[in-house]
Amino acid sequence: MSKQATILGAGLVGSLLSVYLAKRGYKVDIYERRPDMRKEKISAGRSINLALSDRGWRGLAGAGLEEEIRKVAIPMNARMVHNTEGTLSSQPYGMKGEAIYSVSRGGLNKTLMDLAEQQAGVKIYFNHRCEEVNLDSGELIFEDQTTKQLITKKSELIFGSDGAFSALRRSMQKLDRFDYSQTYIEHSYKELHIPPGEGGKFLMEKNALHIWPRKNFMLIALPNADGSFTCTLFFHTEGEESFATLKTENDVEVFFKKYFEDAIPMMPDYKKVFFANPTSSLPYIKCYPWTYKDKAALIGDAAHAVVPFFGQGMNCGFEDCRILGELMDENGDDWKTIFPLYQQSRKPNADAILELALNNFIEMRDLVADKKFLRKKQIEKMIANAFPEKFIPAYSMVSFTHIPYSEAQRIGKHRDEILEKLFLVENLEEKFSSDEIQKMIKDYL
Amino acid sequence: MSKQATILGAGLVGSLLSVYLAKRGYKVDIYERRPDMRKEKISAGRSINLALSDRGWRGLAGAGLEEEIRKVAIPMNARMVHNTEGTLSSQPYGMKGEAIYSVSRGGLNKTLMDLAEQQAGVKIYFNHRCEEVNLDSGELIFEDQTTKQLITKKSELIFGSDGAFSALRRSMQKLDRFDYSQTYIEHSYKELHIPPGEGGKFLMEKNALHIWPRKNFMLIALPNADGSFTCTLFFHTEGEESFATLKTENDVEVFFKKYFEDAIPMMPDYKKVFFANPTSSLPYIKCYPWTYKDKAALIGDAAHAVVPFFGQGMNCGFEDCRILGELMDENGDDWKTIFPLYQQSRKPNADAILELALNNFIEMRDLVADKKFLRKKQIEKMIANAFPEKFIPAYSMVSFTHIPYSEAQRIGKHRDEILEKLFLVENLEEKFSSDEIQKMIKDYL
Repeated sequence: MSKQATILGAGLVGSLLSVYLAKRGYKVDIYERRPDMRKEKISAGRSINLALSDRGWRGLAGAGLEEEIRKVAIPMNARMVHNTEGTLSSQPYGMKGEAIYSVSRGGLNKTLMDLAEQQAGVKIYFNHRCEEVNLDSGELIFEDQTTKQLITKKSELIFGSDGAFSALRRSMQKLDRFDYSQTYIEHSYKELHIPPGEGGKFLMEKNALHIWPRKNFMLIALPNADGSFTCTLFFHTEGEESFATLKTENDVEVFFKKYFEDAIPMMPDYKKVFFANPTSSLPYIKCYPWTYKDKAALIGDAAHAVVPFFGQGMNCGFEDCRILGELMDENGDDWKTIFPLYQQSRKPNADAILELALNNFIEMRDLVADKKFLRKKQIEKMIANAFPEKFIPAYSMVSFTHIPYSEAQRIGKHRDEILEKLFLVENLEEKFSSDEIQKMIKDYL
Repeated sequence: MSKQATILGAGLVGSLLSVYLAKRGYKVDIYERRPDMRKEKISAGRSINLALSDRGWRGLAGAGLEEEIRKVAIPMNARMVHNTEGTLSSQPYGMKGEAIYSVSRGGLNKTLMDLAEQQAGVKIYFNHRCEEVNLDSGELIFEDQTTKQLITKKSELIFGSDGAFSALRRSMQKLDRFDYSQTYIEHSYKELHIPPGEGGKFLMEKNALHIWPRKNFMLIALPNADGSFTCTLFFHTEGEESFATLKTENDVEVFFKKYFEDAIPMMPDYKKVFFANPTSSLPYIKCYPWTYKDKAALIGDAAHAVVPFFGQGMNCGFEDCRILGELMDENGDDWKTIFPLYQQSRKPNADAILELALNNFIEMRDLVADKKFLRKKQIEKMIANAFPEKFIPAYSMVSFTHIPYSEAQRIGKHRDEILEKLFLVENLEEKFSSDEIQKMIKDYL
């Protein structure tokens, strides 16, 4: 087998994967549907800022790309909750000052493309839209988006990192016994913007992920290097209060005054931006199998597009790359062995992070302002402080460790039982070091 | 609006739907991918016989087609269970001699096509494979399967009754916020055959659905008018004992001797047929919405392909037609009103029958030979006999009434609680008329 691989999609995961393959001796051709975003401005107004956490960093590190990205990432140590009354409360993410990192999707993608092209043997072909993949022959048909001509290529090893509406997956979907689902959640989202203050000053706390939780919907804001914040409103698509009913600038003003009054002074043009930017929907994708013989594999969103509420979509895709790299190190070019191991290891974890992310939406929009939730977080911290080796909070397991998502989910569910029990104990702080309570906790750990 | 409608697919549901529309003044063009099955023999060896039950009959009656079909349908009053030891036990389906009816898919489809074409204004175009539907313009592109030429048609009202891999649904799937899933169960199936005995004699009880339940898999057999039985083996696709491991005629012989010994004398050529007939997979499909504006709607398997284990796939599709007919009678040609009502009414019922059918597979292959299950069925009968007005057994609600599937499912779940309680009562038969037990039951009803 020639050491050549084809990657569909030069997004975050495809660009990173090319480096993993190139470092193991592969010549890699990447085909990207869109023009080169480093030369042309594309698809503005519908980005959700990224939050890089430990799995993402490790994926980048495995390709030697960590340092480059560290330079532009902004640490966010806490959730900054903007309450309805205009007050703020800060909820640290980690126990030991850990942070998740705000990076712009476009910026990170451009850097990854640069780093990919610096590898010997990696070439990116832009404006190539994949029309069809013949899985058995390895024939790929592209439409050149500038000339509209069809181009045929052949490859013995094909990766689909072409996102939620993957062309490779579309071809796999025609195979017998291919499970597939696309599901849209009830909410849609819209990008908004808080510009930098005078001299590039941040108008809110820089090192935080800002949330305006409003029970059934929310606004969030993540910092950018230029002092601005990228905001995202997650809101009902239809219904009494929804994107569908905000029809005029006046509607938007009334809505913002009611729910996000403290944000208005920082968003001078929000009413115009609201209608200039599109309202985008939020699908999630599940499918299986992810691979075809030793010939093709789905990776990243193409295999498992999730909702953005745990900030793990990209991190999970980068972890896919890391695991695939480790499997190559153990099994060389034996893709017949690698692909089954890859999908069996990753599928339960992709399912777990999807479920965790769906639940985290409820947590973010509703529970971060809920007294019981906050109390349980406090109890979690008390236990984590008392048993630092044995008890890692659920959020931390996902964001700051490499414990498989499915394992983190299992532990988290089990743990919720003890938190529920301790929640019922009056004056827990006083009784915490008693033998009874300590035994109760130890029995659980 | 002109009273013209286009139907994709001349299968069971499409043919029936055309009659409903024609009777309400519509000119109907049906486009069918396959050749005319009344003239050419097609797709043999992969059919699962149909079991018509009350919903199906009512759907046929609504188009005036009931009598014609009654003539060829064979009533099945009971499940005939073939135990491993070679013994038989009969389990009546209904309380009052009700039956489900065995009909051949091909035969029923041909009759429905004949009856459709007898309606003024209905025309079936065969060998027309739908390639694409432009939902907004109503433009349909077909490939003529004989000439391979593309043909373009236009229609203001389009129905997709084109089955589990519907072309109309494929076009709807590209719309924003269209939920879709295809899921394959772990089992596959294979058609087998018991020929008629001498002089067209049935070799087993004619008026029964025969089941060989073998815990994790099963064989079934349904009677045909010519004295033969159409058999279906539902079996693991892969694994130690599975279609994948039955590779030679000897493997098949060993397998049949182990599990279906009493069937062997009736199936002289089973080892040859086993390899001559394909192994087919069992997908189920969920999607939503089912309609697009006032322009297009999915119906039958195209909207909700289920697994065959409750024998309700066709019955549910015919009920779709009946409900659509009633909505037309109430709302005339106001499809803007009809379509939302249609999908809101039918979607929960399609979801319910899918879940019921998945559960019924477990019941058929495993529980019909399970002591607790049989005891609960006995108790169910005792209650149904004592309270005939108030208590209809779960199977009967689905097969012999028109209670919406979702309602039948809800009642069935609720009822299982009382059955579980009564199951624990020793000597229930003696105590059944006691005040205590009677009160317990009445409280539930």
